[in-house]
Amino acid sequence: MEIIKGYQGFRGVLGHEFVGVVESAADEASILLGKRVVGEINIGCGECEYCRAGLGNHCPRRTVLGIVERDGAMAEYLTLPVGNLHEVPDEVSDEEAVFTEPLAAAFEITEQVAVSSNHSVLVMGDGKLGILSALVLGLTGADVTLMGKHENKLHVAAAQGVKTVLLGEMGEEETYDIVVEATGSAGGFETALSLVRPRGTVVLKSTVAESREMNLAPIVINEITVIGSRCGPFDTALQALAEKKIDVTPLVTETFPVRDAERAFELARKKGSLKVLIDFR
Amino acid sequence: MEIIKGYQGFRGVLGHEFVGVVESAADEASILLGKRVVGEINIGCGECEYCRAGLGNHCPRRTVLGIVERDGAMAEYLTLPVGNLHEVPDEVSDEEAVFTEPLAAAFEITEQVAVSSNHSVLVMGDGKLGILSALVLGLTGADVTLMGKHENKLHVAAAQGVKTVLLGEMGEEETYDIVVEATGSAGGFETALSLVRPRGTVVLKSTVAESREMNLAPIVINEITVIGSRCGPFDTALQALAEKKIDVTPLVTETFPVRDAERAFELARKKGSLKVLIDFR
Repeated sequence: MEIIKGYQGFRGVLGHEFVGVVESAADEASILLGKRVVGEINIGCGECEYCRAGLGNHCPRRTVLGIVERDGAMAEYLTLPVGNLHEVPDEVSDEEAVFTEPLAAAFEITEQVAVSSNHSVLVMGDGKLGILSALVLGLTGADVTLMGKHENKLHVAAAQGVKTVLLGEMGEEETYDIVVEATGSAGGFETALSLVRPRGTVVLKSTVAESREMNLAPIVINEITVIGSRCGPFDTALQALAEKKIDVTPLVTETFPVRDAERAFELARKKGSLKVLIDFR
Repeated sequence: MEIIKGYQGFRGVLGHEFVGVVESAADEASILLGKRVVGEINIGCGECEYCRAGLGNHCPRRTVLGIVERDGAMAEYLTLPVGNLHEVPDEVSDEEAVFTEPLAAAFEITEQVAVSSNHSVLVMGDGKLGILSALVLGLTGADVTLMGKHENKLHVAAAQGVKTVLLGEMGEEETYDIVVEATGSAGGFETALSLVRPRGTVVLKSTVAESREMNLAPIVINEITVIGSRCGPFDTALQALAEKKIDVTPLVTETFPVRDAERAFELARKKGSLKVLIDFR
């Protein structure tokens, strides 16, 4: 939805969360042929200092599936380097596998911040990424609260043991050690700064097309650490799905055949919707 | 200057960088009586969780000398708790001692970020705090560059071994591991985001009254860490001054007697000025 609004100025085929089967490979003996796979979305140049340091996700010349100069997954066929693909374990259904990319993005938080059972954590935003982040952070033993606007979405996280609170029903002056901003709205960041304790950490997950007027003095005065967080480890996400540590299936609002793709977008735009799937088979 | 513009909405006596002599104390036997001192500017309540954890600088009920609900140092007399005072070593002149507070703020950076000789560091802003930050970071052995608009100010840092560059004369596409934003202008932060490498760190030092429209997506996309940095360790700063590790005296543009205080402000407003002192004796 943000890309349609103009985020990154992308023109091309949308889609960066998918599961599919490998139908051909340059290496005809590739062990992935015929296998069910998911794929990492950043394709680095392979030669620069970032790629050589294993940080291809940050290669300045990278393309990104369905986001930067590379057609995406809303199609019958897509191409990705074999090195980007991960075989999906049999224990993980197609519906679950589609969540590998956003679930990996949620696990990225725990790669960047040492979250433990001593921490109070607030996740702002009850969209897909907010719910997945709250569920992943719950695995650390931290005291996690998910804040959002939609009772039905909060319920998905609550059913898996996360505390939830409706926006506007927070206790006054309550602050948290760690606040994860996943509202997907430009105003979320300043709210996050008001909800984190002095010397606390704000994890910024929302990428928003829109700019907004803001004052950053609270970051300095309260010596806040702000950490930008994007793509994460696919292997960790697939393992969590295979071990049924996190149940993503309640996040699927509906699945449409490709001929009804326009209806899928209409539903995805509605406020109560979470994940809407399109089936290209 | 930012407080006069409205930062923090303060009304009262200005001034939070000073040196003075202790003329009276509640404890008439205080060893500080008659001693030359500088003073930490945050006065915590002494009872809350922050104060009990030694983080009185972040006490939500604190007053701040000349900034929040406490008259400041531009006066013949001021009061501070004895616990806020630090005796000035004989090796440190009055002119040098006045820099303890901003020099401590510069040392705060090295308390928050593990800067080493492997790092490339850019300090943005050739005001007092920018110059002091560059000099302090230079002590770590890091490769430090100070960027600013004023040749005369950059020269103060260059004379002590810091590389300098005029704004607009940077190499294209050059990025740094760590960028310290000390421009004191609302636009500095977005420039900092464009000059830090992916996964790098921006240290935010500027507290600016003005808000500004901005887009934070680069923080997320490049997984930048932003660290707000405010007041720092007085003892470290005084020791560096006593050991002559940093020469602050070239930062003094002029000293005025109190009867010429208005002229002092006029001069401080001028673009080429650094520190302007007022002598209340």
